[in-house]
Amino acid sequence: MDTKSLEKVAMSARVLAMDAIQAANSGHPGLPLGAAELGAFLYGQAMKHDPADPSWIDRDRFVLSAGHGSMFLYAHLHMAGYPISLDDIKRFRKVGSPCAGHPEYGMAPGIETTTGPLGQGIATAVGMAVAETMLAARFNTAKRKVVDHYTYVLVGDGCLQEGISAEASSLAGNLELGKLVVFYDSNKITIDGSTDLTFTEDVGKRYEAYGWKVLRGDMYDLPGMEKLLAEAKAETRKPKLVILKSLIGKGAPTKQGSHSCHGAPLGEEEIAKAKAAFGIPADAKFWVAPEAYAFYEKRRAELAKAHEAWKAEYAAWKKEEPALAAEYEAYLSGKAAGALALPEFKAGEQVATRNASGKCIAAATKAWPNLVGGSADLTAPNVSAMPEVADYSPADRKGRYIRYGIREHAMAAVANGLSLHGGIRPFVATFLTFFDYLKPSLRLSALMRQPVIYVLTHDSIYVGEDGPTHQPIEHLASLRAIPNVRVFRPGDAEETAVAWKLALERRDGPTVLVLSRNNLPVQAKADPDWRSTMATGAYVVQNPAKAPDLVLVGTGSELALAMKAAELVQAKKPGLAIRVVSVPSRELFYAQPAALRAAILGEGARVLVAEAGVAMGWERVARPEDILCLERFGESGPADEVAKHLGFTAEKLAEMSLR
Amino acid sequence: MDTKSLEKVAMSARVLAMDAIQAANSGHPGLPLGAAELGAFLYGQAMKHDPADPSWIDRDRFVLSAGHGSMFLYAHLHMAGYPISLDDIKRFRKVGSPCAGHPEYGMAPGIETTTGPLGQGIATAVGMAVAETMLAARFNTAKRKVVDHYTYVLVGDGCLQEGISAEASSLAGNLELGKLVVFYDSNKITIDGSTDLTFTEDVGKRYEAYGWKVLRGDMYDLPGMEKLLAEAKAETRKPKLVILKSLIGKGAPTKQGSHSCHGAPLGEEEIAKAKAAFGIPADAKFWVAPEAYAFYEKRRAELAKAHEAWKAEYAAWKKEEPALAAEYEAYLSGKAAGALALPEFKAGEQVATRNASGKCIAAATKAWPNLVGGSADLTAPNVSAMPEVADYSPADRKGRYIRYGIREHAMAAVANGLSLHGGIRPFVATFLTFFDYLKPSLRLSALMRQPVIYVLTHDSIYVGEDGPTHQPIEHLASLRAIPNVRVFRPGDAEETAVAWKLALERRDGPTVLVLSRNNLPVQAKADPDWRSTMATGAYVVQNPAKAPDLVLVGTGSELALAMKAAELVQAKKPGLAIRVVSVPSRELFYAQPAALRAAILGEGARVLVAEAGVAMGWERVARPEDILCLERFGESGPADEVAKHLGFTAEKLAEMSLR
Repeated sequence: MDTKSLEKVAMSARVLAMDAIQAANSGHPGLPLGAAELGAFLYGQAMKHDPADPSWIDRDRFVLSAGHGSMFLYAHLHMAGYPISLDDIKRFRKVGSPCAGHPEYGMAPGIETTTGPLGQGIATAVGMAVAETMLAARFNTAKRKVVDHYTYVLVGDGCLQEGISAEASSLAGNLELGKLVVFYDSNKITIDGSTDLTFTEDVGKRYEAYGWKVLRGDMYDLPGMEKLLAEAKAETRKPKLVILKSLIGKGAPTKQGSHSCHGAPLGEEEIAKAKAAFGIPADAKFWVAPEAYAFYEKRRAELAKAHEAWKAEYAAWKKEEPALAAEYEAYLSGKAAGALALPEFKAGEQVATRNASGKCIAAATKAWPNLVGGSADLTAPNVSAMPEVADYSPADRKGRYIRYGIREHAMAAVANGLSLHGGIRPFVATFLTFFDYLKPSLRLSALMRQPVIYVLTHDSIYVGEDGPTHQPIEHLASLRAIPNVRVFRPGDAEETAVAWKLALERRDGPTVLVLSRNNLPVQAKADPDWRSTMATGAYVVQNPAKAPDLVLVGTGSELALAMKAAELVQAKKPGLAIRVVSVPSRELFYAQPAALRAAILGEGARVLVAEAGVAMGWERVARPEDILCLERFGESGPADEVAKHLGFTAEKLAEMSLR
Repeated sequence: MDTKSLEKVAMSARVLAMDAIQAANSGHPGLPLGAAELGAFLYGQAMKHDPADPSWIDRDRFVLSAGHGSMFLYAHLHMAGYPISLDDIKRFRKVGSPCAGHPEYGMAPGIETTTGPLGQGIATAVGMAVAETMLAARFNTAKRKVVDHYTYVLVGDGCLQEGISAEASSLAGNLELGKLVVFYDSNKITIDGSTDLTFTEDVGKRYEAYGWKVLRGDMYDLPGMEKLLAEAKAETRKPKLVILKSLIGKGAPTKQGSHSCHGAPLGEEEIAKAKAAFGIPADAKFWVAPEAYAFYEKRRAELAKAHEAWKAEYAAWKKEEPALAAEYEAYLSGKAAGALALPEFKAGEQVATRNASGKCIAAATKAWPNLVGGSADLTAPNVSAMPEVADYSPADRKGRYIRYGIREHAMAAVANGLSLHGGIRPFVATFLTFFDYLKPSLRLSALMRQPVIYVLTHDSIYVGEDGPTHQPIEHLASLRAIPNVRVFRPGDAEETAVAWKLALERRDGPTVLVLSRNNLPVQAKADPDWRSTMATGAYVVQNPAKAPDLVLVGTGSELALAMKAAELVQAKKPGLAIRVVSVPSRELFYAQPAALRAAILGEGARVLVAEAGVAMGWERVARPEDILCLERFGESGPADEVAKHLGFTAEKLAEMSLR
């Protein structure tokens, strides 16, 4: 190890961070200064990567879980030779710069995931590490290892205080992710001050309890770090937590060690003092030691050679195992390997959409060999089992079903990691009401446009006896409010199958399937092309002979309710032309051109909407008094009784229609 | 201890649970059967309580964190003599029964909190335990202890897997809550099967790492349990985790020990077998052993005596300490002790609403001696400090400011616990974007109608450089969608003060204050009574001499934007009558009678709305094309540049108005 050069790299990272944050007049110098040596060690020594080809599938992953220290990442990526220029760094935290305030996936190669909200990074990294073991088990042969890389993470106190990291770390221990190595920048400082204020637990002991191997060292001892990592790698069964004692903002002469340097520019004066101590001119802005660049020039050649060696190995493997290689490449392309034989249903059949979804999962399991499912301990109620598929476990890395435990938040982050790693297509399942527990991770699926599929069952008050905590009322509105999320609330089993198809076909963001626990009749559809029309978000289920006077809109369970209401109204007013419209995806429908929307809703017709949740957003198509909705929490009781108690019936919608 | 009677109590609890769940044809027998002895021990032996007066302020609290086992609670409350009748239990899980599917706060005395979603109970209990120490420190004297009770919790594997329990438990260790005793029903079974699938960590070691004392015992050894509790109480500094090895569904002859008895009725046949084994007639439904009732009759007399003794102690204390007693009683009444001297601002002054809020907090701190604040490690950015108030800590139980650490989820649950305990008025603070991390607990504030105040700063894209993860876009819509929540997004410093006043005055649910990081001008208001009008959710800020042609609606930062847009439009169309309306609380406004809404929005006028978030819900007052909103994630950059980049400017609203 070229310790001398790495020290220059670390010093230069400090300078870049100080100057960039000062120029932006905003940012977090504490971490990039305090952990500069780790960055130098990882990118310059420890990691298998190729800055000339950041998308190399067998690269080691690095996740900066403490994302506020983003200049850490940009400085090291820049010096290592990734396509992040000094000009990009000079535009740190400016609109359009790849060097955003927090690392944003997709802004530049080398940013493996978005890590703004604390704790998300480490949980996402667990997913990446899982993906590695899955692909390794499937594609490595006795002769050759084409999948063989580590997942490294840098966490701070914040990450480790968040509940999501606890969930993910417990799971990682259970899953024995031996190639996950987490470095803990233990500087004992958070925004409010010393960790003594709030965080006096024994973190190492806690991780041992999770089944991790815990190592301890000094952030500023590079040879020591090398030994620690060797020791970490020698333990192949357990995930590793490497606790590195550090000094926040190290290098800022008067501010280091204090929370004052966590999240604000150091100021010109402090920076000048720091530079003087480093022995570089005070006016040298965005200065990188020539030795640092020289070091990486040499290092890049070595890394490229290693990459070439891997390529040769891969080529040899491909020749020996053409079928395996074809499969792996299909996985990586993100496309299904086989045809999707979706289940079929008959009009009139009574099927809960969760059960219809279960059949779709069975079909998708066959068509998509890289589909990886899982539930937060609700496999049977979610009907999320993958038939004839083994559980993923330390004993069976080829298993495709993950038992996440009662850890919704980590589950969704792990799914993001599976997706980001490449090669795996994940779906996850829980109750719709527990969407609240995983939302921060689903938001990141949306922000990073990862095609994670969320199977959320037990929709609305029809959950019945479990009561208001288990009856989602406002969750649909919350889901629809998130940009880039596609939400389907299918009205019957057939719609569920189409929704699954659209979800599997989507490549640019997450899809949420909101499914019923209760049986729903399969509807006969007036629109003969309803399957393709449904891709616009809505279609006509029942149509009168003439232009409609009244249009009843229903989604999910309320499609059947609208159909029944139409019948009741028709009986009272035989001359009225009544149309029933299903809207499985409101956002998709609202995004259509006005003419298409008018064609479906009927021009000049009175529109009523029924949906067992808050009305918010339906005012776009109906007057508030024409929306049958729920603006209160539910009740515990048999589903039908609860619906009746809350005035949520076909009779009520009929009465509103006749008003 | 009358072990024999307690065994009869436990057996009767099993019978009640089996029969109630069978009658409801839904429910979770696993826990009430598996942990019946703990229920008997707590209510029959360990706890200080008085079934004749369940609201006794110095009672021990019991929280069934594993809320799905609700029949545990109802069975033991019934036998102990709380006002839950056998008829109520026969109507388990029926609309209107106090015996709801999960325990619902307010449905019956003795239900200390709503515990449907896993992990919430233990975190809420941490808040209750904190409240006890605060009140004890303030009101106990050297001579007398008027506040002196324990908080007991029953958790299952699910609670301990959830991240929120990890956050809360770490905090409890840090805060040294020596009177918090958590019993862990360790049955090694979850819905998906054995905990070996997902939960192989060493829970005891983890809790030791948090700084807890960990004890181990057998669920079915009543004398052993008594010894364990004595041991637990002897350790006064650390919270306690008592791990009780148990058998899920114990008493169900063929199903016990298996996940099949976790969440479904046992079936008539199994119940008959169980009853035969208990030695009671198979047709004895909802049967309670006479010895159980007899035991509690005797026990109630003892408990009433203890309560009487406390009352005598309290009366003596009150006589000795009239001022203290008056203060305590004021706390318990839920009313402020002093006048609230809210800050004043001048029109034209530039003030970030988070800073205005900081001044309100200072005022509230003085007026409300029982106001307890805190932040999830963002005290300075949230401007949530309470001036001249000490931090709450093991060394200072009188402190009123809680350093929650980076644990948003636990923070909100702890605030629920503080509020539920009685005597404390909590507020909590974090960034608006991290509302996502605490939403499940905020939902419980709303469901339980607890007046917790949420101070959520760093509203929308004006957060600027921290980028999309830190820029809330959809959060306001999510908040507004939750029933019983009052959301204020004040448009200037003055509105912030009124919002704080309304929040403090509210007694029947949570209030959320959505506050800006950026400066906003204090507006001169056209409505002279705007302070009272604001309680309707909206008021007129600027009014033309004649009836308005155009109404610009703004909330939060967009009030200033609307004002500026009005100026731009007026300059182009001097004859146009333009009104500007502020809507600090949309739900309040929508809840007003039509006439009032029309009076504020102007009849027949064209209405445009500006709000830096998703449009959802504004369609009620404006056409979609007349809403200046954000339907995408933000960007990292200086706030003004981001706003310009996203087309979110006064110029844009003016242009839309002139279209």
